[in-house]
Amino acid sequence: MTEEQSLKFNRVAIIGVGLIGSSLALAMRGRGLAEKIVGVDCDPDVLTRAKKIGIIDEGETTLEKGVAGADLIVVSTPVRAIAELCEALGAAAPDGALIIDVGSVKGAVAKAAAALPERVHFVPCHPVAGTEQSGPEAGFATLFEDRWCILTPLERQDEPYRRAVKKAEALWAGVGALVEVMDAAHHDLALAVTSHLPHLIAFTLVGAADDVESVAHGEVIKYSAGGFRDFTRIAASDPVMWRDVFLTNKEAVLEVLGRFSEELAVMQRAIRWGDGKALEDAFARGRALRRAIVDAGQETEKPNFGRDKKGH
Amino acid sequence: MTEEQSLKFNRVAIIGVGLIGSSLALAMRGRGLAEKIVGVDCDPDVLTRAKKIGIIDEGETTLEKGVAGADLIVVSTPVRAIAELCEALGAAAPDGALIIDVGSVKGAVAKAAAALPERVHFVPCHPVAGTEQSGPEAGFATLFEDRWCILTPLERQDEPYRRAVKKAEALWAGVGALVEVMDAAHHDLALAVTSHLPHLIAFTLVGAADDVESVAHGEVIKYSAGGFRDFTRIAASDPVMWRDVFLTNKEAVLEVLGRFSEELAVMQRAIRWGDGKALEDAFARGRALRRAIVDAGQETEKPNFGRDKKGH
Repeated sequence: MTEEQSLKFNRVAIIGVGLIGSSLALAMRGRGLAEKIVGVDCDPDVLTRAKKIGIIDEGETTLEKGVAGADLIVVSTPVRAIAELCEALGAAAPDGALIIDVGSVKGAVAKAAAALPERVHFVPCHPVAGTEQSGPEAGFATLFEDRWCILTPLERQDEPYRRAVKKAEALWAGVGALVEVMDAAHHDLALAVTSHLPHLIAFTLVGAADDVESVAHGEVIKYSAGGFRDFTRIAASDPVMWRDVFLTNKEAVLEVLGRFSEELAVMQRAIRWGDGKALEDAFARGRALRRAIVDAGQETEKPNFGRDKKGH
Repeated sequence: MTEEQSLKFNRVAIIGVGLIGSSLALAMRGRGLAEKIVGVDCDPDVLTRAKKIGIIDEGETTLEKGVAGADLIVVSTPVRAIAELCEALGAAAPDGALIIDVGSVKGAVAKAAAALPERVHFVPCHPVAGTEQSGPEAGFATLFEDRWCILTPLERQDEPYRRAVKKAEALWAGVGALVEVMDAAHHDLALAVTSHLPHLIAFTLVGAADDVESVAHGEVIKYSAGGFRDFTRIAASDPVMWRDVFLTNKEAVLEVLGRFSEELAVMQRAIRWGDGKALEDAFARGRALRRAIVDAGQETEKPNFGRDKKGH
């Protein structure tokens, strides 16, 4: 069996047809990795829209019908729904099916997935990619290209499961992602740093800025190019998805939030005491880190993210 | 005298040939608003580079020679240097010269400018525009287009000064900016919200993230597309410029930082207690505010700032 044959799935069930589910569907379709794609969503309107724009071939509103005959099941719902779905998947998923999720928290998913019968193979996955938009219309086929996808396999050591992990790795590589394998606890801490805390801070800043009574709402908008607007991008992300992230990755988020608050207190004191050297030294770290992110291919080098219509 | 005649300056002295000074030079030159542009910088290398790429016609390393004969003097240095320069400008600036600055803090500038003799006309200005880059090479002619420029005129009521304020307004409008006039104290509070606090938070997050020992530096870089990379843009801004902002706008920054910390404590408690409704309600504010910023022409509507090379 060639690599290509082994990567093609006959029937892919996408549970939760949002930004990530749709993007994976489009990426697999575009690369010939799926024969048929079935969308499963409790909202029939989402299924109609997704079908209309060519993301799915069929839509089902019940899990049982949706996953019947599927050799790949993609769970692309908010994280807390994954745990609930696992119970139903234990009964409904066909023998030998590969099940992957795309949730931003992996400990909670691994715990739920460990209760599944051995006849199905759940490989927890997290593609570190996305935009601030939601819904099937937000999906696009190149979302995962050059982005990291982290796999946190269960502790199962049986051969069919090992093969399933390899297949999941090949699938993500097949849609352009860079694949990393680690344990769920480390994932949850690393992502608390690079994703969960930044989102929490952005959501918080956006709320706090709009609540200063002596500065009008209109002024916050007008002068947002001074830096504030950058934060509004990730603060525009899906509220339910992010609620679930913070509810399921509580310990790691509280840990890194404590670090941040400590550092912020140090900066606050430097401002209060007029300690210019401490401020300048702290600020000087930013450029090197951004440079490293640009060099790693994870960010554009264009000023202002290249977002300005004109100029440079 | 037509509007066009009244807006053209014979000799423009740009003190501090960095991102903003260079951009204003290029914008004025491109629109025919300057006959001759002289760069004044203590670093002769900056002057050589700026001359080579056509930003300035001449370079001077001393203030006295640089401003001799100038009818417009642009002070585009970090904020604390403006106060020092004011003393020298009191002696060196030609009679009737219009002096503007571009600093991010206006109270400290107004205080220094109030000590100037009445024969020169200092109009404190703040174009709310920029990128994370520095130096003459970072300048571009369209930087100010559709961005707000805030003027905080001194309390002088004499006719020549009023005319100077009008001329400064016309100059900014002439390079494409939207002009607003307000008092310095209100400016400093509004910008603490929309610019200074966001920068402080970004600098702090970048430092804190890189200091979590159990998460490797390389991981912070690899998984930065989860949200962290957004913060690194403004955290890559000029450390000296930002040091000066926090040293000169201490009270307003500490005030809005207090608001932010309060809100962050509320979020922290919601996470600790698992209060999903509080989190979801708080997170739901982000989209509306970003939408308003996009509708106001201050942000791109493209997902991910449109920075991704491929796709959508």
